[in-house]
Amino acid sequence: MIIACLLSDDFEDAELRIPYDRFRQAGHEVYVVGVERGKMLVGKKGLEKVRVEKAIDDVRADEFDALFIPGGYSPDRLRGDERFVRFTKEFAGKPILTVCHGPQLLLTAGMVKGRTMTAWKTVQKDLELGGAKVLDREVVIDANLLTSRSPSDLEAFVRESLVLLDRWRRPVT
Amino acid sequence: MIIACLLSDDFEDAELRIPYDRFRQAGHEVYVVGVERGKMLVGKKGLEKVRVEKAIDDVRADEFDALFIPGGYSPDRLRGDERFVRFTKEFAGKPILTVCHGPQLLLTAGMVKGRTMTAWKTVQKDLELGGAKVLDREVVIDANLLTSRSPSDLEAFVRESLVLLDRWRRPVT
Repeated sequence: MIIACLLSDDFEDAELRIPYDRFRQAGHEVYVVGVERGKMLVGKKGLEKVRVEKAIDDVRADEFDALFIPGGYSPDRLRGDERFVRFTKEFAGKPILTVCHGPQLLLTAGMVKGRTMTAWKTVQKDLELGGAKVLDREVVIDANLLTSRSPSDLEAFVRESLVLLDRWRRPVT
Repeated sequence: MIIACLLSDDFEDAELRIPYDRFRQAGHEVYVVGVERGKMLVGKKGLEKVRVEKAIDDVRADEFDALFIPGGYSPDRLRGDERFVRFTKEFAGKPILTVCHGPQLLLTAGMVKGRTMTAWKTVQKDLELGGAKVLDREVVIDANLLTSRSPSDLEAFVRESLVLLDRWRRPVT
């Protein structure tokens, strides 16, 4: 699967690095999509740096099979830029994998109403006000939408994401 | 007036410094209330540092006349700590001055429904989902609640905050 990873500065370091590496090790193509191609983005703890591989202006959602949104302060920055909000909306029906503050981008994109999901604890009430059913679990899977709460959920997040991606790639017929 | 300034790390530097200094210059007492007394808090740009003057566990809301919540990433950190949410709730009916991401704390405290207000652009939709009427103006004043959007609104934020505080201090009879 070809996965778009939406990212800005001040992402949560482990929430980018661990899934990014594990998704690639599992054979998926993952591309960091940001504002400016080639720009180095730095995690909020300064532990991880990653280069923007594709600029948001140079990509179309139909070039990707799935969306991955790491947490930290990155999602709130991204949702202030209408291009990322529009791009996100086009993943309705495709796998969306997001953790921590990542669902803030889905909230601004109007994609949480009626969905069962989780998020970082401070974002959970925002999601409820947006019409989501919020569960306090390490991973919540609602059809194409897979959400986790925090870096301590990453092991389960990666494991279940890989299952979801495989199921999407090889539908049972 | 005695003002509680709720603060955590990664606050927006200017949104702490400018109102903090100007409120004090105008004769108000402003105290930085945080988790641990004496701890140095650093702004998200690294430009401003300030020491916690009072620990949240050592204060009661009735010791203060008004609440000031600077923006940046600090409000989202604070609303993850139930002590700050409880403290904030007790300012219903007293002046609440907040800018940028500050209203996130009011959202978690359940204090935005039916209020007319503004905030940082990414937070505006969250507030609408929480039942607020959101205006895109540099300052919005709704009775005791005064809100602004961003550092570029600070001049108006401080000016109107000082008017509001004075009116609260000296009611017209």
